[in-house]
Amino acid sequence: MNSLTNSQFFSIPKLNPAPELLVQKWLNADEPLSLEKLRGKIVAIFAFQMLCPACIERSIPQAKRVDRIFSSEDVAVIGLHTVFEHHQAMQEESLKAFLHEYRVNFPVAIDLPSEDENDPIPQTMRTYRTQGTPTLLLFDRNGYLRQHKFGHEQDLVLGAEIMALLREE
Amino acid sequence: MNSLTNSQFFSIPKLNPAPELLVQKWLNADEPLSLEKLRGKIVAIFAFQMLCPACIERSIPQAKRVDRIFSSEDVAVIGLHTVFEHHQAMQEESLKAFLHEYRVNFPVAIDLPSEDENDPIPQTMRTYRTQGTPTLLLFDRNGYLRQHKFGHEQDLVLGAEIMALLREE
Amino acid sequence: MNSLTNSQFFSIPKLNPAPELLVQKWLNADEPLSLEKLRGKIVAIFAFQMLCPACIERSIPQAKRVDRIFSSEDVAVIGLHTVFEHHQAMQEESLKAFLHEYRVNFPVAIDLPSEDENDPIPQTMRTYRTQGTPTLLLFDRNGYLRQHKFGHEQDLVLGAEIMALLREE
Amino acid sequence: MNSLTNSQFFSIPKLNPAPELLVQKWLNADEPLSLEKLRGKIVAIFAFQMLCPACIERSIPQAKRVDRIFSSEDVAVIGLHTVFEHHQAMQEESLKAFLHEYRVNFPVAIDLPSEDENDPIPQTMRTYRTQGTPTLLLFDRNGYLRQHKFGHEQDLVLGAEIMALLREE
Repeated sequence: MNSLTNSQFFSIPKLNPAPELLVQKWLNADEPLSLEKLRGKIVAIFAFQMLCPACIERSIPQAKRVDRIFSSEDVAVIGLHTVFEHHQAMQEESLKAFLHEYRVNFPVAIDLPSEDENDPIPQTMRTYRTQGTPTLLLFDRNGYLRQHKFGHEQDLVLGAEIMALLREE
Repeated sequence: MNSLTNSQFFSIPKLNPAPELLVQKWLNADEPLSLEKLRGKIVAIFAFQMLCPACIERSIPQAKRVDRIFSSEDVAVIGLHTVFEHHQAMQEESLKAFLHEYRVNFPVAIDLPSEDENDPIPQTMRTYRTQGTPTLLLFDRNGYLRQHKFGHEQDLVLGAEIMALLREE
Repeated sequence: MNSLTNSQFFSIPKLNPAPELLVQKWLNADEPLSLEKLRGKIVAIFAFQMLCPACIERSIPQAKRVDRIFSSEDVAVIGLHTVFEHHQAMQEESLKAFLHEYRVNFPVAIDLPSEDENDPIPQTMRTYRTQGTPTLLLFDRNGYLRQHKFGHEQDLVLGAEIMALLREE
Repeated sequence: MNSLTNSQFFSIPKLNPAPELLVQKWLNADEPLSLEKLRGKIVAIFAFQMLCPACIERSIPQAKRVDRIFSSEDVAVIGLHTVFEHHQAMQEESLKAFLHEYRVNFPVAIDLPSEDENDPIPQTMRTYRTQGTPTLLLFDRNGYLRQHKFGHEQDLVLGAEIMALLREE
């Protein structure tokens, strides 16, 4: 990454509130969540697969740091289990054990499988056109998507982005 | 570190512009710098000693990341070589070789030694009452000291702090 | 670990050849393996669970290093998937995807489940009385168990142990 | 590194005992050492410069691990400060502070400067034709040089090499 000036941190225009998450089931949550319900908070969605090495090594630990550092009053950290390969290997039972063993306490959404059983891409992934895992999606208080990053984002940049959104009116 | 709400990121009240740096010599700089001259930019000062293991392992690499990620129009990264022990071991000649070998390109100030030759504490260190190295000092655009951290600051927090200052009027 | 003299590296007496592995299925192997068949080589068995964080972070990478550095003429690296918790989460289908994603190419044995369906401990684990995962088992050319380590072994120590066995008559 | 068979670990033929170290001064030692005096032990010499980043990050920590793991009855760990650049920056006073701050407790030899004041290469470095720092030199019990490695050696390989020498007659 090259130097960014203050005005260059977000390149995504604010058009309309982002489309809603399409979720099969929520784990680590008392009731189903939605972008709608989280309006008013910054939302950081970490899309991952439990058998994606870069997710385990870098993205999940980063999500846990964001969850620990920022107050839940301000920032909602969400995991999105968006399986597009090895579907049988990453069913709910395995995901639950993974979340337990890796001490993941924030809410995790299981991306809704396609209605077409020959289509491996789940519905939130298709809606947002994410390219794979890990992917970071960052939403402002009004539910606009402001950052979409495939691969790892540096902590310094992510901290800056979250704060920029926090300090918006 | 526990969760911080949006309003808790800076605990230092804005009183008066911070006292000026007291510098024996500037390296990696065309001309002497000062907080005064840098007014209008965020200033991140990384106080270090070239033979302090935590500085080498964590603080200097972090300073290089800040320097690389943020535009120099917005953020000035400054090293402050604030030697309070092993003075003979960390003279200018050694510091210059260190900066060369560790590819440190941002300006580095050599803290001005005490006028009392029996006093090991240099003058900027005494003025700011830093407790040792590494220490991070963060100044806003108006030259107010807004963060003072002894030891390592996490990248996520530092990124958030810098952006919070960037987005102030 | 404290300093070890040359004669202290192995504390397990050579009694009898170790009991055979009890295996449900072999992956990454053209035909079933056994300690018997591997007689003549040093055998390094890395017992793991695919959802054990310390295994993923430290033990599997170490096993890959051993496999890469030592000739397969001399040293046989074996993974032993010894599941004693979250059984439904770590079935063969998930393990296969794990091995694919983490680029594990050496043979992996699935430890044989207990005949008692209420007993979560698989049979090789019970035979060798391993305490959990990761566990390292090191066998000499004659099939004697010479090292049994629960938790992570340092690379320097493991390299020394393997070579000590290699240089035995 | 590719796989090595048991017989390929050392490529240096045993010709004659290696030439003696040429040393200006010993630190961390009650009296001057020499390869001659250390005959009977494996000797691991870590040639370094205190301002060489790879030495600080990888080689010195590795030397400390070797010193901690192997008994001093068997293995002598020696640092060789072999300065070939930035000579004024790495004088004895700076080296002493470095050894103190980095908790280096094993003996360290300061390589003897060339008699020709225009020659930056010190005498042990010239004798052994080392290419730079870090360099590892490994000697057997009889004082023969058995390994000469420029750059970092993996711990697994180094552990194996040391044990191979320990188990020689």
